[in-house]
Amino acid sequence: MRRAPKKKPTYHHGDLRRALLDAALALVGEGGIDALTLREAARRAGVSHNAPYRHFADKEALLVAIATEGFERLADALAAAESEAPDDFERFVGGGEAYVTFALENAAHYRVMFGPTLANKIGQHPDLDVVGMRAFKGLLDHVERAEARGLLPGDRPADAVAMTMWAYVHGLAMLVLDGHLPLDPDAARALVRGTATTMTRA
Amino acid sequence: MRRAPKKKPTYHHGDLRRALLDAALALVGEGGIDALTLREAARRAGVSHNAPYRHFADKEALLVAIATEGFERLADALAAAESEAPDDFERFVGGGEAYVTFALENAAHYRVMFGPTLANKIGQHPDLDVVGMRAFKGLLDHVERAEARGLLPGDRPADAVAMTMWAYVHGLAMLVLDGHLPLDPDAARALVRGTATTMTRA
Repeated sequence: MRRAPKKKPTYHHGDLRRALLDAALALVGEGGIDALTLREAARRAGVSHNAPYRHFADKEALLVAIATEGFERLADALAAAESEAPDDFERFVGGGEAYVTFALENAAHYRVMFGPTLANKIGQHPDLDVVGMRAFKGLLDHVERAEARGLLPGDRPADAVAMTMWAYVHGLAMLVLDGHLPLDPDAARALVRGTATTMTRA
Repeated sequence: MRRAPKKKPTYHHGDLRRALLDAALALVGEGGIDALTLREAARRAGVSHNAPYRHFADKEALLVAIATEGFERLADALAAAESEAPDDFERFVGGGEAYVTFALENAAHYRVMFGPTLANKIGQHPDLDVVGMRAFKGLLDHVERAEARGLLPGDRPADAVAMTMWAYVHGLAMLVLDGHLPLDPDAARALVRGTATTMTRA
């Protein structure tokens, strides 16, 4: 009996795109954004090194697709936390907990979304700009709702409070992801909860 | 008239080490830690590609030297801010402002100190471990002094407050360094001051 010769997988159009995204995310997860090349993503997905160009013009286009997907998932995670919260305080805390949970559970997406690579490309990728601005707008709304409900004092401009909250959850996520703060996800969420408790008494 | 042939620079022992550190910092500043190789640092410093090995066994040793120097400079910056502050509140705010200023003005050092590369090397570089632990201990002391002076409520464990403050200034510095928050150093310091003002009223 002879085995069939080993063949490269064949993908439907959309499946290849997904396979390349997953391969790219795995590479970023292992070695950071610098470890990613279209050629290596193709090798991981088991296709020829020319195949990625059907979906992505270059590495930057692949990164933009990852970041855009990441912002959509983050928005879903924040909306879910909001809708499940039983009261105003839990809605306020839940946003911060959901943000940190998203970052820790989607480290490769998160590094692409908020690392240095795409930050100076504003104006060049309209889809990404839209989801990125929508995310900050969502945070601003979150702050303004918390002020309207009396959870936050409202004595600072809302955008300053939003930047402060973003810096905090971003820094916490990065210190944990990069191995500087030895917190498991539950401990990271507990820290966010403690901080939110203090903030809402200010 | 003939010019002397162009020669590679000659360095005294300590000067070559400094020249290699400066070349490495320039490379990290331009392309991140992945852009750094001992060979390229040697080329920048104008010496043979074997010359770095007199001072650094490998790239990791060079990174450890950069991080250790960074922690020493950060400690000096924090101590200077502390000694110049006219009162308790200014001492409290000044530490946060000085941390963010250090990160923005020493971006290459900061990325090496708090990026992913060295975080999993704890226990392997005693000198770096000592200065790193001393930095966190300094932050804990800062929190405890602020509690003792009634600036912070003291209703959370000091290490939780210290982690919260670190996450905040780290996240703020990284979002600015990576181009996600368009704040100049004065605006970043003003944000820290606003946050500290709110915290000390909590």
